[in-house]
Amino acid sequence: MPDRGDKDVDMNEKSVSFSEGQTQNVPYIHKIGVPPKPNLVKEFKTTVKETFFPDDPLRSFKDQPKSRKIVLGLQAIFPILEWGRSYNFNKFRGDLISGLTIASLCIPQDIGYSKLAYLKPQYGLYSSFVPPLVYAFMGSSRDIAIGPVAVVSLLLGTLVSNEFDPDTQPDEYLRLIFTATFFAGITQATLGVLRLGFLIDFLSHAAVVGFMGGAAITIALQQLKGFLGISTKHFTKDTDVISVMKSVFKNAHHGWNWQTIVIGASFLAFLLVAKYIGKKNKKLFWVPAIAPLISVILSTFFVYITHADDEGVAIVGKIDKRINPPSIDKIYFSGENLVKGIRIGIEAGMIALTEAVAIGRTFASMKDYKVDGNKEMVALGTMNVVGSITSCYVATGSFSRSAVNYMAGCQTAVSNIVMSIVVLLTVKFLTPLFKYTPNAILSSIIISAVIGLIDIDAAILIWKVDKFDFVACMGAFLGVVFKSVETGLLIAVVISFAKILLQVTRPRTAILGKIPMSGVYRNIEQYPEASKIPGVLIVRVDSAVYFSNSNYIKERILRWLTEEEEEDDDLKATKIHFLIVELSPVTDIDTSGIHAFEELYRSLRKRDVQLVLANPGQQVLDKLYASGFPDLIGENKIFLTVADAVHTCSPKLNHEV
Amino acid sequence: MPDRGDKDVDMNEKSVSFSEGQTQNVPYIHKIGVPPKPNLVKEFKTTVKETFFPDDPLRSFKDQPKSRKIVLGLQAIFPILEWGRSYNFNKFRGDLISGLTIASLCIPQDIGYSKLAYLKPQYGLYSSFVPPLVYAFMGSSRDIAIGPVAVVSLLLGTLVSNEFDPDTQPDEYLRLIFTATFFAGITQATLGVLRLGFLIDFLSHAAVVGFMGGAAITIALQQLKGFLGISTKHFTKDTDVISVMKSVFKNAHHGWNWQTIVIGASFLAFLLVAKYIGKKNKKLFWVPAIAPLISVILSTFFVYITHADDEGVAIVGKIDKRINPPSIDKIYFSGENLVKGIRIGIEAGMIALTEAVAIGRTFASMKDYKVDGNKEMVALGTMNVVGSITSCYVATGSFSRSAVNYMAGCQTAVSNIVMSIVVLLTVKFLTPLFKYTPNAILSSIIISAVIGLIDIDAAILIWKVDKFDFVACMGAFLGVVFKSVETGLLIAVVISFAKILLQVTRPRTAILGKIPMSGVYRNIEQYPEASKIPGVLIVRVDSAVYFSNSNYIKERILRWLTEEEEEDDDLKATKIHFLIVELSPVTDIDTSGIHAFEELYRSLRKRDVQLVLANPGQQVLDKLYASGFPDLIGENKIFLTVADAVHTCSPKLNHEV
Repeated sequence: MPDRGDKDVDMNEKSVSFSEGQTQNVPYIHKIGVPPKPNLVKEFKTTVKETFFPDDPLRSFKDQPKSRKIVLGLQAIFPILEWGRSYNFNKFRGDLISGLTIASLCIPQDIGYSKLAYLKPQYGLYSSFVPPLVYAFMGSSRDIAIGPVAVVSLLLGTLVSNEFDPDTQPDEYLRLIFTATFFAGITQATLGVLRLGFLIDFLSHAAVVGFMGGAAITIALQQLKGFLGISTKHFTKDTDVISVMKSVFKNAHHGWNWQTIVIGASFLAFLLVAKYIGKKNKKLFWVPAIAPLISVILSTFFVYITHADDEGVAIVGKIDKRINPPSIDKIYFSGENLVKGIRIGIEAGMIALTEAVAIGRTFASMKDYKVDGNKEMVALGTMNVVGSITSCYVATGSFSRSAVNYMAGCQTAVSNIVMSIVVLLTVKFLTPLFKYTPNAILSSIIISAVIGLIDIDAAILIWKVDKFDFVACMGAFLGVVFKSVETGLLIAVVISFAKILLQVTRPRTAILGKIPMSGVYRNIEQYPEASKIPGVLIVRVDSAVYFSNSNYIKERILRWLTEEEEEDDDLKATKIHFLIVELSPVTDIDTSGIHAFEELYRSLRKRDVQLVLANPGQQVLDKLYASGFPDLIGENKIFLTVADAVHTCSPKLNHEV
Repeated sequence: MPDRGDKDVDMNEKSVSFSEGQTQNVPYIHKIGVPPKPNLVKEFKTTVKETFFPDDPLRSFKDQPKSRKIVLGLQAIFPILEWGRSYNFNKFRGDLISGLTIASLCIPQDIGYSKLAYLKPQYGLYSSFVPPLVYAFMGSSRDIAIGPVAVVSLLLGTLVSNEFDPDTQPDEYLRLIFTATFFAGITQATLGVLRLGFLIDFLSHAAVVGFMGGAAITIALQQLKGFLGISTKHFTKDTDVISVMKSVFKNAHHGWNWQTIVIGASFLAFLLVAKYIGKKNKKLFWVPAIAPLISVILSTFFVYITHADDEGVAIVGKIDKRINPPSIDKIYFSGENLVKGIRIGIEAGMIALTEAVAIGRTFASMKDYKVDGNKEMVALGTMNVVGSITSCYVATGSFSRSAVNYMAGCQTAVSNIVMSIVVLLTVKFLTPLFKYTPNAILSSIIISAVIGLIDIDAAILIWKVDKFDFVACMGAFLGVVFKSVETGLLIAVVISFAKILLQVTRPRTAILGKIPMSGVYRNIEQYPEASKIPGVLIVRVDSAVYFSNSNYIKERILRWLTEEEEEDDDLKATKIHFLIVELSPVTDIDTSGIHAFEELYRSLRKRDVQLVLANPGQQVLDKLYASGFPDLIGENKIFLTVADAVHTCSPKLNHEV
């Protein structure tokens, strides 16, 4: 291979003239930058670093003494050691108030969500005790509120109940729940340790909006069961809207209980009004935050004094008041239940992760601090692993409680510690009080909570911005509503991938024209005032040229040429002699792409058109030289800018024409 | 939504001054082109057209009378009606010679390849009779030679023998072969009719090179069986190199037959010498083309007169001389064998398609005519469907025979007709002559044929151009050689996809500087002479901004800023006040991308840095406006070029500093 460093581009460099300031005077034609031969090892290192360590986690460790390194290492694993040192009473006041607020919100939610997962109420409370504590020591988000959430509870309940019936096989059911929780944690921690956090980026925003909306509707519909007082035995376990509505109406004549409906409907109205007040006046955020607890207290008291439970109003019943019994012996570590647990754990873990990371990022960007995605995953994973051996099911960040936490003025993760202590005290001392709590009130609380997950504004924005994204959003939504949570998820992921692949397969190309009074060439569709240069066709390729699109790009360019020539024939205009391909947006090329350009060159030569390249980037130029392409078309056919290329081509044209 | 057409960008347009010719005089700042609101239906139509009908197949039908449309329609399905009208004796001379040449090459190959698929010799010959005839009427390539090929025979043999043993269940085996062939044809034709031809573009060139090389080595090793005279019973059906070599050496003490080895080795030497001669002198291309037939004739004659078959030299034996018996009643149209047939058919059909389309494109670009990918698939599919009901197995374009066809001067697909007639006559009258042909000679012919599939030069070029492609190439190669054809294929596809996804997840970004004596800003790594503007950081994003990378891009830009600020602190340089994001290579953006830019804007505002955008494309600008982003950052922060942006920012800087 020739030494490329020495190859100067052979080009008629005309006299250079200067003007004042930034004014430029063409014709001075700058050489294209042929970079030195890249160092393979260095390039590989850069790719690995950008893929797995874009945040340069070891940066602060550099040039530090060993003892300092150990301290930094511990602080990296337990951020509380870092921020805890500057913790003060002022901050604690904020954390105490917000911790108490989210505790009052989480207790009724926990009891309700554990029903979504077909679990006894205490497991929801357990999951609001251990995981938030672990997170407080390891997590880097200051605003997230940890605990069970509606969507993950529904997903876990659906997946595990497909394997074991929670009514007839309660032991196996519970064991598989803990197994799945354990592997959800392992999945999350592994992604963090292997620095594969970017995998969750593959679930697009649009897909998440649709998925959440669908899950919210599914969950709300399922609450009709508790809301109408239909007994669990008569109700379907399917989550799609058609099965649920069938179940509801099949039970209409004998299963509905009017007392239950009255209680549920009046408190739902109360909760929705509270929510509305909180939305209208941000200072009254605590109204919707404590409304659920007030509803629970009022309705429990009401049932207790009226003995409504004897009238068929279903109540929560006795809650076990032991504190988080150990459950490590319940996890399946062998057999086919292990495989099921791993599969369910991976799914639930990924969804939980997506939610937590989205919440972490949202609030971090509002307060402008940085959440380290990979470290966050390790924290979430550890908390779920620890949770799985202490009778918790998958916990993650709850959007509604995190928002309340933020608005109540939380300062650090200490608010999670406050919340978990309140939950602990509740389990220990207050569970007897929940005995007479009607199930209908829990349904009302869940309905009013999940309504917030239906984000119509976001869906409208998605429709406005990108129709394809909207299809992904609706696909996920309809999949969840009409089939199942898993189907919706699958649809969302498939459509998201299809979009990326379509963009890579059928990239855009554009014809460029000269913007008047400038040396700038732009898409003539976007800038109708841009004018074409007679005898020259300028095409811009808007994507990396890969095997998946190289053939399309070649044929598209030739098609532009054919169309242009036909138009020229009609107008009796100058025949096209130069085809300039603007490569600025072409970030990379592979062997298939180079073959396509070689074929393009040959086809053009047959048509007596010269191929000229403008502004190839570093990667592209590198690979073109490696394959000897510049020797084929002539090195003086590669230019820094379209303007330079046109300037060099046009005079030749005048000779010929 | 405000009417965007009227929104002029509020910008201090200074007096415009002209210079002669193309000279440009900054400061004239051109407005960015806010395109009119796109028409949804039109946009959708364009996307569908570019995805499925990039070749505009109905173009020639436009504005034609009805009778002409019927003629054009027939010509579109049967291109022979178009080119047949200008067919003449001169062309026929070329086709006759090339047809005879490829017939002499294909007959021994067909017999050998049918052994690869564990089929009797006549099925190979059948497959060189019907499919080429059908193709000649419907295909659009002039140079391709149709018939059975080594890789597809191996693949089909491996996949079908996993289901049925060809020795003990010959009937079921044969029926599944025909079923798979039928569905291979259906797959190919369906892809063509649905215009999904672009799907085969997803198998990258690099992966194909590796896959073909691995398959060639696998096939050559399998030939050791015939070459060493080991009986089929003692030989493994696995195709990986380790199983095959074990089988070879296990049979070393009792299974090798020295007479067979002598015959095989001497003729292999003859074939390789012939190949070498053909390679050295292109005019002697006919030497390697007829060498196989000469070997067959000589060795058959030799075995016949020496009675070597009594010494343990395996011979072909009696070949059925019936012509293509109908086989439609043998195809499974129900039951689980139907499912198996569909699965195997799809795999074999896709591989056959990839090979045929690659050959068609290669020779079309050498003679500069156009092969219509989708039409070609319909032709190949029809020919395999017809083949499957006339006792043929999957046929496709053979690279070696197509090259001979091209060099022998073929003019049209008539050379395929000539070849198929010669094959027909051979089946009818000459098969008895093949009775004494030693199997060893077929092995030699196959070995010498598949050696050409090992393309070391291509592998070296791939290594030079793109290391990631090389990994895909070697992955496919090693997968085929050490595991199985299917594994190799799977590895190739997975790595090819991973590459696309990686590029979409971790796009490159670059810091731009001003090229001296121009208004052009380029990557300072590629152009070390480019200089940064004090107080301004210019970052170029090299990819569409999607959900899969939006977060990475945001953080990468902030990281550039941090690094730059630290460097500036060291140098006591101007603090950075403007961050210009050059969007030229950003071909598209989605809602996640817009959110990322909004977060970037907020983070920058906290750092007292202004966000400025340069040259957003049509799609991007459209979506930014739809989401109201320009109102957020200020419409006067979006510029046509980086130069304009710098020019507007710098004076403000001077005031501040």
